[in-house]
Amino acid sequence: MFHKRHPQVGAAPGTLVIPADAPTPRVRQILYSIDGLKSDRTITDLDQLEAAPAAGVSWVDIQGFGDERLLIELGEIYGLHPLLLEDVVNVPQRAKVELHDDNLLIVLRMVRVDENAEITVEQIGVVLGEDYVLTFQECYGDVFDPIRKRITAGHRRFKEKRADYLAYAIADSVIDHYYPALEVIGERLEEMEEEAVMAPTTAILQKIQFMKNRLLNLRRALWPQREALHSMVWETNALVSEEVRLYLRDTYDHCVQTTEVIEMYRDMISGMLNTYLSSMANRTNEVMRVLTIVSTIFIPMSFLAGVYGMNFDDMPILHWKFGYAMFWSLAITLAVGMLVFFGRKGWLRPQETKNQKPD
Amino acid sequence: MFHKRHPQVGAAPGTLVIPADAPTPRVRQILYSIDGLKSDRTITDLDQLEAAPAAGVSWVDIQGFGDERLLIELGEIYGLHPLLLEDVVNVPQRAKVELHDDNLLIVLRMVRVDENAEITVEQIGVVLGEDYVLTFQECYGDVFDPIRKRITAGHRRFKEKRADYLAYAIADSVIDHYYPALEVIGERLEEMEEEAVMAPTTAILQKIQFMKNRLLNLRRALWPQREALHSMVWETNALVSEEVRLYLRDTYDHCVQTTEVIEMYRDMISGMLNTYLSSMANRTNEVMRVLTIVSTIFIPMSFLAGVYGMNFDDMPILHWKFGYAMFWSLAITLAVGMLVFFGRKGWLRPQETKNQKPD
Amino acid sequence: MFHKRHPQVGAAPGTLVIPADAPTPRVRQILYSIDGLKSDRTITDLDQLEAAPAAGVSWVDIQGFGDERLLIELGEIYGLHPLLLEDVVNVPQRAKVELHDDNLLIVLRMVRVDENAEITVEQIGVVLGEDYVLTFQECYGDVFDPIRKRITAGHRRFKEKRADYLAYAIADSVIDHYYPALEVIGERLEEMEEEAVMAPTTAILQKIQFMKNRLLNLRRALWPQREALHSMVWETNALVSEEVRLYLRDTYDHCVQTTEVIEMYRDMISGMLNTYLSSMANRTNEVMRVLTIVSTIFIPMSFLAGVYGMNFDDMPILHWKFGYAMFWSLAITLAVGMLVFFGRKGWLRPQETKNQKPD
Amino acid sequence: MFHKRHPQVGAAPGTLVIPADAPTPRVRQILYSIDGLKSDRTITDLDQLEAAPAAGVSWVDIQGFGDERLLIELGEIYGLHPLLLEDVVNVPQRAKVELHDDNLLIVLRMVRVDENAEITVEQIGVVLGEDYVLTFQECYGDVFDPIRKRITAGHRRFKEKRADYLAYAIADSVIDHYYPALEVIGERLEEMEEEAVMAPTTAILQKIQFMKNRLLNLRRALWPQREALHSMVWETNALVSEEVRLYLRDTYDHCVQTTEVIEMYRDMISGMLNTYLSSMANRTNEVMRVLTIVSTIFIPMSFLAGVYGMNFDDMPILHWKFGYAMFWSLAITLAVGMLVFFGRKGWLRPQETKNQKPD
Amino acid sequence: MFHKRHPQVGAAPGTLVIPADAPTPRVRQILYSIDGLKSDRTITDLDQLEAAPAAGVSWVDIQGFGDERLLIELGEIYGLHPLLLEDVVNVPQRAKVELHDDNLLIVLRMVRVDENAEITVEQIGVVLGEDYVLTFQECYGDVFDPIRKRITAGHRRFKEKRADYLAYAIADSVIDHYYPALEVIGERLEEMEEEAVMAPTTAILQKIQFMKNRLLNLRRALWPQREALHSMVWETNALVSEEVRLYLRDTYDHCVQTTEVIEMYRDMISGMLNTYLSSMANRTNEVMRVLTIVSTIFIPMSFLAGVYGMNFDDMPILHWKFGYAMFWSLAITLAVGMLVFFGRKGWLRPQETKNQKPD
Repeated sequence: MFHKRHPQVGAAPGTLVIPADAPTPRVRQILYSIDGLKSDRTITDLDQLEAAPAAGVSWVDIQGFGDERLLIELGEIYGLHPLLLEDVVNVPQRAKVELHDDNLLIVLRMVRVDENAEITVEQIGVVLGEDYVLTFQECYGDVFDPIRKRITAGHRRFKEKRADYLAYAIADSVIDHYYPALEVIGERLEEMEEEAVMAPTTAILQKIQFMKNRLLNLRRALWPQREALHSMVWETNALVSEEVRLYLRDTYDHCVQTTEVIEMYRDMISGMLNTYLSSMANRTNEVMRVLTIVSTIFIPMSFLAGVYGMNFDDMPILHWKFGYAMFWSLAITLAVGMLVFFGRKGWLRPQETKNQKPD
Repeated sequence: MFHKRHPQVGAAPGTLVIPADAPTPRVRQILYSIDGLKSDRTITDLDQLEAAPAAGVSWVDIQGFGDERLLIELGEIYGLHPLLLEDVVNVPQRAKVELHDDNLLIVLRMVRVDENAEITVEQIGVVLGEDYVLTFQECYGDVFDPIRKRITAGHRRFKEKRADYLAYAIADSVIDHYYPALEVIGERLEEMEEEAVMAPTTAILQKIQFMKNRLLNLRRALWPQREALHSMVWETNALVSEEVRLYLRDTYDHCVQTTEVIEMYRDMISGMLNTYLSSMANRTNEVMRVLTIVSTIFIPMSFLAGVYGMNFDDMPILHWKFGYAMFWSLAITLAVGMLVFFGRKGWLRPQETKNQKPD
Repeated sequence: MFHKRHPQVGAAPGTLVIPADAPTPRVRQILYSIDGLKSDRTITDLDQLEAAPAAGVSWVDIQGFGDERLLIELGEIYGLHPLLLEDVVNVPQRAKVELHDDNLLIVLRMVRVDENAEITVEQIGVVLGEDYVLTFQECYGDVFDPIRKRITAGHRRFKEKRADYLAYAIADSVIDHYYPALEVIGERLEEMEEEAVMAPTTAILQKIQFMKNRLLNLRRALWPQREALHSMVWETNALVSEEVRLYLRDTYDHCVQTTEVIEMYRDMISGMLNTYLSSMANRTNEVMRVLTIVSTIFIPMSFLAGVYGMNFDDMPILHWKFGYAMFWSLAITLAVGMLVFFGRKGWLRPQETKNQKPD
Repeated sequence: MFHKRHPQVGAAPGTLVIPADAPTPRVRQILYSIDGLKSDRTITDLDQLEAAPAAGVSWVDIQGFGDERLLIELGEIYGLHPLLLEDVVNVPQRAKVELHDDNLLIVLRMVRVDENAEITVEQIGVVLGEDYVLTFQECYGDVFDPIRKRITAGHRRFKEKRADYLAYAIADSVIDHYYPALEVIGERLEEMEEEAVMAPTTAILQKIQFMKNRLLNLRRALWPQREALHSMVWETNALVSEEVRLYLRDTYDHCVQTTEVIEMYRDMISGMLNTYLSSMANRTNEVMRVLTIVSTIFIPMSFLAGVYGMNFDDMPILHWKFGYAMFWSLAITLAVGMLVFFGRKGWLRPQETKNQKPD
Repeated sequence: MFHKRHPQVGAAPGTLVIPADAPTPRVRQILYSIDGLKSDRTITDLDQLEAAPAAGVSWVDIQGFGDERLLIELGEIYGLHPLLLEDVVNVPQRAKVELHDDNLLIVLRMVRVDENAEITVEQIGVVLGEDYVLTFQECYGDVFDPIRKRITAGHRRFKEKRADYLAYAIADSVIDHYYPALEVIGERLEEMEEEAVMAPTTAILQKIQFMKNRLLNLRRALWPQREALHSMVWETNALVSEEVRLYLRDTYDHCVQTTEVIEMYRDMISGMLNTYLSSMANRTNEVMRVLTIVSTIFIPMSFLAGVYGMNFDDMPILHWKFGYAMFWSLAITLAVGMLVFFGRKGWLRPQETKNQKPD
């Protein structure tokens, strides 16, 4: 529930915390410039890293943190501040945008939906320099293949624009991938809503709570991201050009929309709680209703039968010819009277009408 | 529930997303100047578009996005930024006002009530240039006929003022149409309130939830609109004159009023939930009350009858002359005693007094 | 519930909306200067309006909007912007302060309590010019007689000060009249609180909801008023002198106090809901308690009577001399045992102690 | 509940409202300077007031407002604005700090706990001039004796510092006296918490509501005070020196702490409501449990006894030797079976474990 | 519950409040400079304090306030303002950062988890001067041993940087120690969640309330700390260098994360309340269900038995050969009919499915 990986308490600041089972880093460098793609290869030794071409961009993508030495060496090559390195390696950090001397750190939450509709959340650290972009990710696999394809295909905008556009494209791709995740959640919410009405058990309550916590976590991940993007759009700095800012404004709008969908989902969840509680109360009422009807019909009749079961010597009615018939007519009159009374109260039909979608 | 149409995940920014069943665009150009209406015609080919007359305004209205090529061509004619085009075509976007180099994008939510009192919400994108206004709408039909009539009739203010006044008139018309929609909702709320007291079923609870979600959505549509109008009124730019700003202040006030009505409705809805829950609890109480009265009256009497039904040899009372009469007097005394006790507790009259409007 | 009178949807801005049954305007002009009252008369034709005396003030009071032509003519005389006229005539508008070129529009909510303790809320529009004050009101009757008396009596401050002081006196009078209304509401709340404990019916719940909505409406009327006064105090303009601002600060303080009283009332209302719900639950508990006591005492005894009513051949006890006495001693022991058990549980005394004011 | 004393509706601003039973003013002047205490005497006639000694301070303390003429005369002597005088006399006003031309008005809420642990709240108006401090109080008795003692004893700081330090000392003393009051409330809350668990009656609910309202009122008194002190610390003016501001920062911190304690108390109160409701529900459950156990054990057994009480001719079992014994073994088996069933469900032990403080 | 130690009401400002059982101060001075550790010794007399070496730092750590004279003497040595001394000695104060003339006061909340997983909260006062750091703590024992070790080991950053870096290291260490405490709380919450479903007693409700209050207190301690760190990062002053600010930004981020975890825990607690209430309602339902089933099955059958126990002369069925068998077949038919009815309603299986973690 609370998985913040944090440095050994009391460790010096800037200490990298790498779990024992961290995967080996996979480093991949893509170089391109106005002339199109220059190279795209997997790096096994950091010495193989090349400088960005003139008026071009170098994108170094690191997946897996299983080699502390390599990360530190990379930090030295690109002059990264130790605290910046800590922020991208010691996941999870809050989403943020931090301006350092000659680079900009962007920490985002990447969301992916796999084929089983399972949602995974992962931190992506983006470092934007003048002519390079570094991306750091704890596990293998990302959502950037369409970007790579567009670079490889020599897409006009990538060729014309610089590293800041690449950073934008990465952030935009991250935000875009929230939509499928939100759709998956929306479908589950609809299923749960039906369950809350039809089968109000504590199990569904727990599902509701669980989903509520999940949405809260997602919300907590998204709000700082929204702020971060906001500051990228509105706080000028030398690394992000005015034009890319315009594009980022669009990404920011999308980010705002996702937070609004989450707020909407949270309202749905709280509505579901009401439905659940009301369904439970309805159940109790239903049980009570049946008990009351059966009891109040038979209790007076039982009393009557008890009366005629008494052994008084002097109960002439017992010896009348139609005594027994009279008893029954009396009993049935009582029962019918009760039923009429209940019918008037509206208790003979179930309170719960069949569930139908409100128009 | 969550219908955001978004580009293919990973698509390049600025990509237009047009559903397969989008209606064919209908383009209509109105030209007018200080001399009155110059022309008003339906355009079938964009080459037919004319420039605005001197000191005049060109209003191009596009309804239906079923032709990507046409939209892009239009964008080129008026020098629209690809992201601006994305914002007006890929609906729904949040309501907003965005200043571009030489035009201003206004995204609003248009609300219409049809003859069946059904409310539809649709995005209207307005692009305000120096001498033109473009309006983009996904479906056919809008709320601007009174504006067209006033232009055609050569209304003084339209003739004297420029494109910014037309943009204002469009925004004002959009906001004005919220009032009938709010009235329709208000009537439904009143009906629901009565139902919540009279027939507290889970069905009405679901109606309440449904209406609550609807109001939340409306509120979410309106708040950014309010902010957008606020920024139009208070942030100066070259496209909106000081005088039109004064008019916009009025539109902003109306927009604020609509948000307040929605807040009021939301309070009503939450009051309804209380009424509903209380009515349900009242029902349970009523059922309990009847059960208790009947049970507690007859249970002691039944015991008494049971006693005199015992077969002990030595129960002299059974052989007394007035034994049976004594039994009945005892039983009736018990019953009357109970009734008096209940009467004092106030349980003999229903808790629920007839529903009357509080004065 | 939602009585916003608004222009015909799609009407041109600045259109006056006057209901068919609007009362005929009554126009009254008071002129005074440093020399005291100059004239105070009812105007039947706008040509009778006089200019303010030198270093004096002209107060024109219009009550009733039943003559559109007159209102427009008045607007022309004083050079009122069409939108300003719309704001004072098309009631209700949000309370606000709006600076126009040479006048200041103040829209307030006037509250009056009549002899039946009924509260009515009405809009009062005040237009402050350099040497005049116009007041617009939909119905006849206002709360300004003390002001008129002080002017007529030649009160020193009115003589020495200018039109802005008159506008302040009007605003101050409006705010002062909230106190009696709040006292009336406070008394009703106290009555309702008692009822909620003593007689928790759905009717009282509806009264609570109704009062809650009323307080919400009052609150919505007051908050913009508070903001409006705040801006009058703190935003300097040529029309309101520094000294009158000091007086307005006091009015603002009173306005803040009224909003705080309303917040207090709202907390009381929400406490009342708790009391109501708890009282209802108490009722159910009380009913349950009686049912349980009676049932659990008699059910075992009835069983016992049933046993001795069986017809087994071989039940020697039936033939014992003290068999019947034994039955009774057994039955009474059971009943007493149950009573002792309930006594220990504290169920024999009502849960509800008599209601007493907490010390 | 709502005791705002306000001027006659429609009265001229600055009118003093003095209740008929207001106590006669007691005026006391203390004069001191760098040389120590100069005089400390009770004034019966305002002519006896002396000017402050050179580089010294004059503290005039007025308790009781029963003499309007005296108050107005005092106002004239010190050049107090009529509105300032209204603010200190027409209690209660919101706590505030108001800068006038040559003095500073500080309105605070003084809290006192008497020997019966009763808390009284009273307004204290402080007017700080260049070389004087005026304190206004409606009733006799205050919390400033320690300050008087320190002045009389020639405490170094008082001698060295000026009137602003005296005003600070008064404000500090007022805030310090909130601590004992908060302790008294804290003790009552602890008592109530126990009662809410042990004896959940509507009476305790009303106590909770009452305390909640009280805390709300205290909170409403404290928040404006906090703001007022904040503005005294951070808004520079000629009357309060930089050094005294440093001291005031400390008083402000204490004020913030008291508001936080009140917030904590409010959370406790809302927790108490939950406890109360849960205890009540527990009670219902307990009653239900006993009813269910007794009923479900005896109802089947009663049926069995009824069966063998039937008068069919042909019920061989009635004539069997061990028929009666068989009946009992059957009945006891049924009862034991039910008890085992209930035991498994955990219904035989009370749900409510003895109350113990959570560790 | 409310343990604010405050000066005797009415005491002069700056008075130190030292409880009778305060431990004797332990003073320890560490001196280091660019050349590494110079000395680290326990001071018994303040005369032994040495000045900081050139370009070095003097860290004086005081634990225990049992000697007022020593504290005042220390204050004089370092020129501490009396109010500053009051703030570090009269614990607890709100966390804050206060800039004095030539030092900076930082008040933080230190959290420690002991071996029994008990969490203790203590105030730590840090005074940062140009070349010294003073730390004040009420009890013995702290969380700074790793810092001391790094200084002793001549860690590069400590040698290179100045007093502000030491102050940062202390603040960072304090914040880092929140993580283990939060983990302990998280584990307890998980235990409580299970209990709330499995055994919903008032005892667990009280545990929930208790934990809720605890989290509220922690939250109240943390929020001012967050603000304090924020002001340290963003408000420039001469004592904290630009580079250390960068490090503090990281500490601030961690502090924000801890507040977010606490918010998450609070949501969990409120979810637990729902689960608890729902579990209790489930219990009631379960009890009702069993009562209803048993009652409604046996009540009609008992009536039937009562009927055939009547003593009418003329009840032919009693004399039929298969009368008794007919009775039983009728009774069993009734019972089976009821069971089928309940089965259809779904009342025969418990509402509560076995608790399973939602997937």
